[in-house]
Amino acid sequence: MAPIITAFERSPDRGRGLARDMRVRWALEEVGQPYDVRLVSFADMKEPAHLARNPFGQIPTYEEDDLTLFESGAITLHIAETHPGLLPDDPNARARAISWMFAALNTVEPPIFERSLATILEHDAPWYQQRLQGLNDSIRKRLTSLAGHLGDAPWLDGAFSAGDLLMVTVQRRLHGSGLLEEYPALAAYVARGEARPAYQRAFDDQLAVFRDAQREEG
Amino acid sequence: MAPIITAFERSPDRGRGLARDMRVRWALEEVGQPYDVRLVSFADMKEPAHLARNPFGQIPTYEEDDLTLFESGAITLHIAETHPGLLPDDPNARARAISWMFAALNTVEPPIFERSLATILEHDAPWYQQRLQGLNDSIRKRLTSLAGHLGDAPWLDGAFSAGDLLMVTVQRRLHGSGLLEEYPALAAYVARGEARPAYQRAFDDQLAVFRDAQREEG
Repeated sequence: MAPIITAFERSPDRGRGLARDMRVRWALEEVGQPYDVRLVSFADMKEPAHLARNPFGQIPTYEEDDLTLFESGAITLHIAETHPGLLPDDPNARARAISWMFAALNTVEPPIFERSLATILEHDAPWYQQRLQGLNDSIRKRLTSLAGHLGDAPWLDGAFSAGDLLMVTVQRRLHGSGLLEEYPALAAYVARGEARPAYQRAFDDQLAVFRDAQREEG
Repeated sequence: MAPIITAFERSPDRGRGLARDMRVRWALEEVGQPYDVRLVSFADMKEPAHLARNPFGQIPTYEEDDLTLFESGAITLHIAETHPGLLPDDPNARARAISWMFAALNTVEPPIFERSLATILEHDAPWYQQRLQGLNDSIRKRLTSLAGHLGDAPWLDGAFSAGDLLMVTVQRRLHGSGLLEEYPALAAYVARGEARPAYQRAFDDQLAVFRDAQREEG
C-alpha cells in the first residue's frame, strides 16, 4: 500500500505550493516513493476522522499501514529515515542535517509565517506598517545568519538533505515580499531547490489540485 | 568526555527555567547522562567561536567529541536517539513521539513565544490589548486541541517521551498568563512534568547559574 497524505481540497495559496503538504510531496518525490492524496475541506479538517489523524486539525498527515503521523517536519524526517536520499549515512552528518531541519521550522519559519499571517489578518490595522517593519527586521536577522553560514556553498552542509528541503520551503513564503532578493545567495539557494526535478513534480501535482478545484467552479 | 552544552551566563528569565537549555538539561537528566555547561554572554554569542556552534548565535548548543549540534529540538532528539528512556522501542510509537516533538515546537510554541515577546516589546504600544487578545485566542485554539487529545491520560501517547518533555517546556512559558489555568488537564500535565526528579535536577542546576550571577552583582 502506498502511503496516503492529506492536503487542502482548495488551498488558500492558490496553487503556489506554500501549503505544508508541499514539503511532504517533495520529500516523497526525492526518494521515489509513490503516494496517494486525500483532499480535505476546511469542514473535513474539524471532523473526528481528521482529528484522529491530527489532533490540531491541520494538514498534512501521513498514513502508512497502521502508522499515522502528523506535522510536516516529523513526516519529512520519517520519510528521510526510512528511505535513502535525504539524510547522510554518517551519523554525525545525519544529526547535523536534523539540526537544520529544526532550524528551518523553529528558528527561520516563525517570523516568516507570522509575517504572512499579518499581511492577511492585520493589513487594515492602524499598526500594520510598524508591525510589518518589526517582522521584516526579525526575518532579516535570520536571513543574514543563514546567508553568512551558506557563503558560496550550494547546500547547508554537504549534499542536499532534508534540512535543505525544509529550509527552501520556509523561505519560499517570502516570494513577492522583496526580502529574499536582498540576499542573492539565498535567492539562488531557493531557486536551486526549486529547480530539482523532484521539486518540480511535487509542485505540478499540488498545482493540478488547485486547477481541478477551479474547473469545478464553472 | 561528557557532552558540553551552552547556556546563558545571565538568563533573561531570571532562573525560571524558560531558556531553551532547560529542555536539553532535562533530557540529559532523564537519560542519566552527565554533562558540562559553557556559559556564554550575549557578546560571546556574536563571536565566531559561538557562531561556529550555531550560525544563528543562539543557545543551547551541544558538543560531544567531534559532533556539534544546535537547536534544542534536534539536540533533544539526538539525546533520545542515542540513550534509552525518551523514545519508545516500537518504530511506529517512536515516529509518533517524534510527531509530538515537532508539534510542540512548530504548532504549539510559536503563538506562546510570540505572546511572550509581545508582552516585552509591544507592551507600551497603543495596539497592545488588541494584539494580546489575538495571541491569546491563537494560544487557546492550540490548547483546546491539545486538551482534547490528552483527555484523562497522563502523557500524550503512552509512556512519557521526548514529545512530552518538549510539550511541557513550551507550555511552561504560559505560567503567570492565566491561560494554562483555563485548561485544568493541561495545568496538571505541566505539573506532572515539573514533578519528575530529572526535571527538578535540571531546574535546580539552571537556577544555580542565575543565583551565582546575582551574587557577582554584590
